[in-house]
Amino acid sequence: MKLSKKLNHIQHYFSPKVIGEVNDVFIKLVKIKGDKVPWHNHQNEDELFYIIKGKLLFEIEHRKPFIMKKGDLFIVKRGINHRVSSKKECSILLVENKTTSHTGSVINTISKSISQQLTQQ
Amino acid sequence: MKLSKKLNHIQHYFSPKVIGEVNDVFIKLVKIKGDKVPWHNHQNEDELFYIIKGKLLFEIEHRKPFIMKKGDLFIVKRGINHRVSSKKECSILLVENKTTSHTGSVINTISKSISQQLTQQ
Repeated sequence: MKLSKKLNHIQHYFSPKVIGEVNDVFIKLVKIKGDKVPWHNHQNEDELFYIIKGKLLFEIEHRKPFIMKKGDLFIVKRGINHRVSSKKECSILLVENKTTSHTGSVINTISKSISQQLTQQ
Repeated sequence: MKLSKKLNHIQHYFSPKVIGEVNDVFIKLVKIKGDKVPWHNHQNEDELFYIIKGKLLFEIEHRKPFIMKKGDLFIVKRGINHRVSSKKECSILLVENKTTSHTGSVINTISKSISQQLTQQ
């Protein structure tokens, strides 16, 4: 599976797409552009971000914000408030538990259900 | 975490190194060069391969072998016999359950315990 080709088929920002599963985790691709992701956390689940293309501003509560670039990997641990944003398009690989809600218990206009992540572009 | 820097510190081939965890899975980096990985399977665990650098020959029982290149991702499902090899150095990101044995129930000279993968270079 060539990730660059998979990414070409993703048309909408902030809409994670499940591309595979490894037992209890989903492997997802997501493109983001802008700052629509709300501050949130995942109470019981760690979440892996790996940057395929572009740059991502990562903000974590009580910590200095940092920029992730292509080839960078970061795991935000469960319960930690965070949000991500990018001025230009950024393509991200996510590794998340199957139970992980997109934006935790915070629901806003971009929040996608697991069902949407399994079926929608 | 810049994966290219992490890879610079890996000196030995066929020696997966745990670089993070997402709940019940380990995130690992491994460099391989040669064909020392035996045919094996993981009875209960899926295994994700993502190519960071180089090319990987992927062989799966009853299937045509294929070459993975930089940016390619493949998940070998539980119970499926497989082996990987490369003529030149290949750097791989692995997503594996914490219970996954390196070379399944097949032990050879390259097989590493989880403890070794957590501590060794």
